[in-house]
Amino acid sequence: MERVLIIGTGLIGASAGLALRAAGFTGRIDGWDQSQLELRAAHAMGALDGCAGNEWGALELARQADVIVLAVPVLAIKDWMQKLAEVVSAGQLITDVGSTKLEITELASRLYGGDGKAVFLPGHPMAGKESGGAMLAEAGLFNGAMWLFTPASEQQSDVETEWRSWIGFMGARSLDLDAKRHDQLCAWVSHLPQMLSTALAALLEDEFGDDPEIAAIGGRALRETTRLGASPYSMWRDIALTNSKPIADTLLALEQRLTHVRENLRTPGLREEFEQANRFRARR
Amino acid sequence: MERVLIIGTGLIGASAGLALRAAGFTGRIDGWDQSQLELRAAHAMGALDGCAGNEWGALELARQADVIVLAVPVLAIKDWMQKLAEVVSAGQLITDVGSTKLEITELASRLYGGDGKAVFLPGHPMAGKESGGAMLAEAGLFNGAMWLFTPASEQQSDVETEWRSWIGFMGARSLDLDAKRHDQLCAWVSHLPQMLSTALAALLEDEFGDDPEIAAIGGRALRETTRLGASPYSMWRDIALTNSKPIADTLLALEQRLTHVRENLRTPGLREEFEQANRFRARR
Repeated sequence: MERVLIIGTGLIGASAGLALRAAGFTGRIDGWDQSQLELRAAHAMGALDGCAGNEWGALELARQADVIVLAVPVLAIKDWMQKLAEVVSAGQLITDVGSTKLEITELASRLYGGDGKAVFLPGHPMAGKESGGAMLAEAGLFNGAMWLFTPASEQQSDVETEWRSWIGFMGARSLDLDAKRHDQLCAWVSHLPQMLSTALAALLEDEFGDDPEIAAIGGRALRETTRLGASPYSMWRDIALTNSKPIADTLLALEQRLTHVRENLRTPGLREEFEQANRFRARR
Repeated sequence: MERVLIIGTGLIGASAGLALRAAGFTGRIDGWDQSQLELRAAHAMGALDGCAGNEWGALELARQADVIVLAVPVLAIKDWMQKLAEVVSAGQLITDVGSTKLEITELASRLYGGDGKAVFLPGHPMAGKESGGAMLAEAGLFNGAMWLFTPASEQQSDVETEWRSWIGFMGARSLDLDAKRHDQLCAWVSHLPQMLSTALAALLEDEFGDDPEIAAIGGRALRETTRLGASPYSMWRDIALTNSKPIADTLLALEQRLTHVRENLRTPGLREEFEQANRFRARR
């Protein structure tokens, strides 16, 4: 692996560039972002050696790259998968960092991995912040994080093996999962907590607005349960669109559970609910 | 204020003793807890000068105390209010640290505050930990915390004024609220986040048990939104029993909000929900 192209140089893309450098990668890293601001910031902080001048330039760089990292939202990843399929070829690896994997993995099976074709490795580093942007990028963002893969095929090409090694050098652990299972698990551990926190914060905003009493009284419980409410829609739109059914299933299950708690505030059912929750936490 | 009696020497009661000492209180602090373990621990760590030998002894100490602090669960506070009303008299202050205030404040109006009677000041320090017990007590627990009061009468006796000063010396700010409003606000900022976190953790325990994938994938979002799930039922039973209606109202509102999110995962309604949540967080 001597040439890497990062498409999308926001928080994750720029952090990947910085992390590769910090892990000792001495090859060339080029980048492209449709926001000149993000692209220049990533370049200025040392995440990139060079920048494509426009999308056509990015496709030119893609022809020469050993590894292409797609670090844009999920629907934009799918667009790039279509465009890149026409310019890349055998021996090249395309990988992504999208938050949902089923649609991307299905598309990868159709467009990549056959004879004479480039390989696509669907990936998802479980790392991030409430806000995005290259300015928040860090070389250590993936250190200790879990980097999930949902491979479209069982064979591993040489360049894929090498890319997986670099993930390890960045300090991340990795785990391979079935794409559908990935999306269901992420609905539970990531998408449901997000929707819940957003709904709670939105409800409190409706209820209290700038009431100073809430600011005076609210403590750690409120702060923690609404923290994710700061996440921008732009980061979540594609996740909601590409994982709607699993997210809806988990939301419905939680609604029913809250109804159960509400109907048992004065019965022994509440004790059972607390004890079940205690068991979950005791494992962690 | 020369003699203080703390009834209930768990986390809050023992911390109050330690905090009084740290703030320079040089009078005597006695304590009582129905658990000999909690009582001995509070004494051993310096939160108390002396311990009542039994409940009858505690009532004897109550006769001599200037201030009596009730730091037991809400229903036990109400029991002590009844017992103490027969032994205390004018010039003495009884205060509590219970999490709900309407039932306590109503009872205080009936039992205390008349001519020749002791004064009762309902209080609620917004401080605590997921677990209780004297062993977790800290002199600094109330430092920077908000200590709420829901006075039963508008007049302030001398000993009440002095007790309020000590709250300030402990590093806490304070705010007076109507008791009913207090319980509604606490339902939103404390009880709803607790029930939510308990319901989510219980649901995940049902769904995944000891599945190692959840442990591997779950990150900060999951950890934070389920953290309160570790709280024991023993700390919440009385809150649920004495604030059922406000808690049920907030739960129902959240259930409806989650339904709204679920039905709008693929519509512009989700954008509005995120933007409303962003506004709430931007104020904080």
